[in-house]
Amino acid sequence: MSKPLNVTIWNEYWHERNNPAVGKIYPNGIHAVLADGLREHGFESVTTATLDEPEHGLSQNVLDRTDVLLWWGHKKHDDVADDVVARVHARVLQGMGLVVLHSGHFSKLFKRLTGTACTVNWREDGERERIWVVTPEHPIAQGLGRYFELEKEEMYGEPFEVPAPDELIFLSWFQGGEVFRSGCCYVRGRGRIFYFRPGHETFPTYYDETVQHVIANGVRWVAPVMLDKNPPANTKRAPIEPIGKPA
Amino acid sequence: MSKPLNVTIWNEYWHERNNPAVGKIYPNGIHAVLADGLREHGFESVTTATLDEPEHGLSQNVLDRTDVLLWWGHKKHDDVADDVVARVHARVLQGMGLVVLHSGHFSKLFKRLTGTACTVNWREDGERERIWVVTPEHPIAQGLGRYFELEKEEMYGEPFEVPAPDELIFLSWFQGGEVFRSGCCYVRGRGRIFYFRPGHETFPTYYDETVQHVIANGVRWVAPVMLDKNPPANTKRAPIEPIGKPA
Amino acid sequence: MSKPLNVTIWNEYWHERNNPAVGKIYPNGIHAVLADGLREHGFESVTTATLDEPEHGLSQNVLDRTDVLLWWGHKKHDDVADDVVARVHARVLQGMGLVVLHSGHFSKLFKRLTGTACTVNWREDGERERIWVVTPEHPIAQGLGRYFELEKEEMYGEPFEVPAPDELIFLSWFQGGEVFRSGCCYVRGRGRIFYFRPGHETFPTYYDETVQHVIANGVRWVAPVMLDKNPPANTKRAPIEPIGKPA
Amino acid sequence: MSKPLNVTIWNEYWHERNNPAVGKIYPNGIHAVLADGLREHGFESVTTATLDEPEHGLSQNVLDRTDVLLWWGHKKHDDVADDVVARVHARVLQGMGLVVLHSGHFSKLFKRLTGTACTVNWREDGERERIWVVTPEHPIAQGLGRYFELEKEEMYGEPFEVPAPDELIFLSWFQGGEVFRSGCCYVRGRGRIFYFRPGHETFPTYYDETVQHVIANGVRWVAPVMLDKNPPANTKRAPIEPIGKPA
Repeated sequence: MSKPLNVTIWNEYWHERNNPAVGKIYPNGIHAVLADGLREHGFESVTTATLDEPEHGLSQNVLDRTDVLLWWGHKKHDDVADDVVARVHARVLQGMGLVVLHSGHFSKLFKRLTGTACTVNWREDGERERIWVVTPEHPIAQGLGRYFELEKEEMYGEPFEVPAPDELIFLSWFQGGEVFRSGCCYVRGRGRIFYFRPGHETFPTYYDETVQHVIANGVRWVAPVMLDKNPPANTKRAPIEPIGKPA
Repeated sequence: MSKPLNVTIWNEYWHERNNPAVGKIYPNGIHAVLADGLREHGFESVTTATLDEPEHGLSQNVLDRTDVLLWWGHKKHDDVADDVVARVHARVLQGMGLVVLHSGHFSKLFKRLTGTACTVNWREDGERERIWVVTPEHPIAQGLGRYFELEKEEMYGEPFEVPAPDELIFLSWFQGGEVFRSGCCYVRGRGRIFYFRPGHETFPTYYDETVQHVIANGVRWVAPVMLDKNPPANTKRAPIEPIGKPA
Repeated sequence: MSKPLNVTIWNEYWHERNNPAVGKIYPNGIHAVLADGLREHGFESVTTATLDEPEHGLSQNVLDRTDVLLWWGHKKHDDVADDVVARVHARVLQGMGLVVLHSGHFSKLFKRLTGTACTVNWREDGERERIWVVTPEHPIAQGLGRYFELEKEEMYGEPFEVPAPDELIFLSWFQGGEVFRSGCCYVRGRGRIFYFRPGHETFPTYYDETVQHVIANGVRWVAPVMLDKNPPANTKRAPIEPIGKPA
Repeated sequence: MSKPLNVTIWNEYWHERNNPAVGKIYPNGIHAVLADGLREHGFESVTTATLDEPEHGLSQNVLDRTDVLLWWGHKKHDDVADDVVARVHARVLQGMGLVVLHSGHFSKLFKRLTGTACTVNWREDGERERIWVVTPEHPIAQGLGRYFELEKEEMYGEPFEVPAPDELIFLSWFQGGEVFRSGCCYVRGRGRIFYFRPGHETFPTYYDETVQHVIANGVRWVAPVMLDKNPPANTKRAPIEPIGKPA
């Protein structure tokens, strides 16, 4: 493809400015580190948007030129305006790719796309997470070994109340005794969605090279084959074959 | 199971009272015919609810004692109150079974459960529909032959913008040249959902013995294995295995 | 259903007679303990079959009256005659339910049904296995809590080279750092298959009450809705609708 | 990708030499027309292999340098040597892509990969087939409209006894009253498989531009992300985390 993908990274950008420990790890925000990682993986057109911008930085205009959106949120899910959520949701159904990161599992957007409560069990004790590749043939797993490790992460444990993923890529093992479906692919409308678990704000997860590699793979996988600006409506159609009229 | 299933049939009940042609076919409403059919199939506890009742007949109390809900709507989707939709949605995630009939595909409830636009192509020319059994082993297909026919039905054609069903049971052939995924099973939270296509209000579809048989099979399949009144929340958990504390 | 399910338990029955440590745990064979467990769960018609019997105890006659077959094998996969495998495979496609236990993942039968190599990583260090319920609504998970534990088991680790299961019920956490898809449901032809991981011969796993409970749930879930003794063939059919003949 | 994909087209090449009507349509064989079509779609490295060649033209050497294999067979399924089938099967599990065409559904290879009987209903009356796109976002559907038509084709009707496809792309409508899952995607091991229904030998289907387009899309989709010449074996692994030894 000659035209570069337009990637927009959305971050609520709250912890980094209100929790000094997080601010120290991500002084310019999680979105800045994600953007750097994608640029290093060859994505030329990467922009960011945050909660405090007008329309959360996600105007119709911005969405219309976005091919792939990344979403990180946690503390401020409820502050995301419903009409912006509806706009992003509609755009995913048109074909915009979506990568949902970590606590984005509980965003209005992901709950709306999955139709479920998206609840998890969790623990913030900074334990070891080992992420196993279940589907080695999948493009999102390209370049990975059997597993990769994060020395300190928040635990998310099953049951993860989501629809059975269309494709399951990763399973996490946690030191404290839990497991989690950490890489889940969905198709909704013409849009592809990749949920990727790691990325708690108090750990430097998004600096991890393997994590950046997986996110880059994810962006490529969700990138639209086609974007249909005229999404389907309930549409009346004439018969193609001859039929008799009802009596 | 000794305790009978409590089945509630919801119908917007508008066409039957406003369109004489429909009223002639279903003088007491589509819900009444559906209820009769289920009673003939051995369901002992069947009640009905309609749009014009207080809370559309779907108070928390009614839902709490409902094991399986059937849903028929068409003209008045937008008149269904959002808080009732939210209540039914939450109850499905708790484990209440749901059978969505015909134009219920475009209800607020089904769109909320699927996360998609649920659009179809359609034509109201009263043509022949032949419904093929794709998954003969499935309990919903029990007792059916290779296919069954409805002499006059509304056409619904692909693409049907829904998530890929967890199980696909039926495919429809239409005289005018289209096909449709007419029997789709989903699991959302602890609830099972069966979408069954036929049932346009201007045709006597719900008097059809095979259609009644399939709906009875569907009610049995979506019936909850367990109903969890305390649905999962994001829950903090202590480690099961010993782990070191974060530095 | 008034007629009791006919359950046949197949076991290679080699370790128990050749390894004293195993013989001490299962003096009458793994099959005997599995049979006792099912009888305690209300199954009235349970018989067993082993490798050394004529036709491995799986004559056409035996299979014809078997509704659900359990399969445990490990050391002697290659000694199972190809024609018996073909016969069992055909019977599964007709609708006979199949529960594949532990190292049965590498049997000729399971490889033939899945079309894959069915390889795993493994370790026989007797470590703790914690089995998490991923799909709490599923009949196979009925009556279980969030997880159950086996104090000592063999480890099986991902990747498990099987087709993506039609339904994923359990995920295992192992003390040594691995995860595994331990409860996998498949439909093949008219037959249902449940693969359940635990059951290494050197540990008393099949005496465990929860394991017995899951196997009983599994037998009920794979039990056939219909058994078709005349399985589908490539069949020539006349047109249902009028068509012109080819020129 | 700079390195061109190596595509091998396998054809039993019997009808074309033994049935004059077929020989007139495909004088150099179906494989020659398929090869021309792929070359016109930009595939630079396309070779063919047929039943009568030594080892059916599918030596280990040929397979080792094949990225994607196409398979057309019908009359001579039983003449394909079992060891060649085993070799191709193993190569698919390693990651070689496979496109199975039309009556290849009943080949030893496809039955071995699916684990099922792969039966269909059929009729050779040269009727109209209309192929509907069910999953417009999928790469295999790229560039297609809502449906495409073949004026004369053999009918294949449901039930198609295969595992539920991992992704369902096309549904066929037939003039005579049947439907069929005509575009089915599977992953087996590290290999991707695309089954595409059309292509009866007595009709000029493989000259059709849309059919050629879909096959080209299919070849791209099954093309391996990675090819693993050392496929997984049951492998003993040391623990990653410290565990106690069994008593």
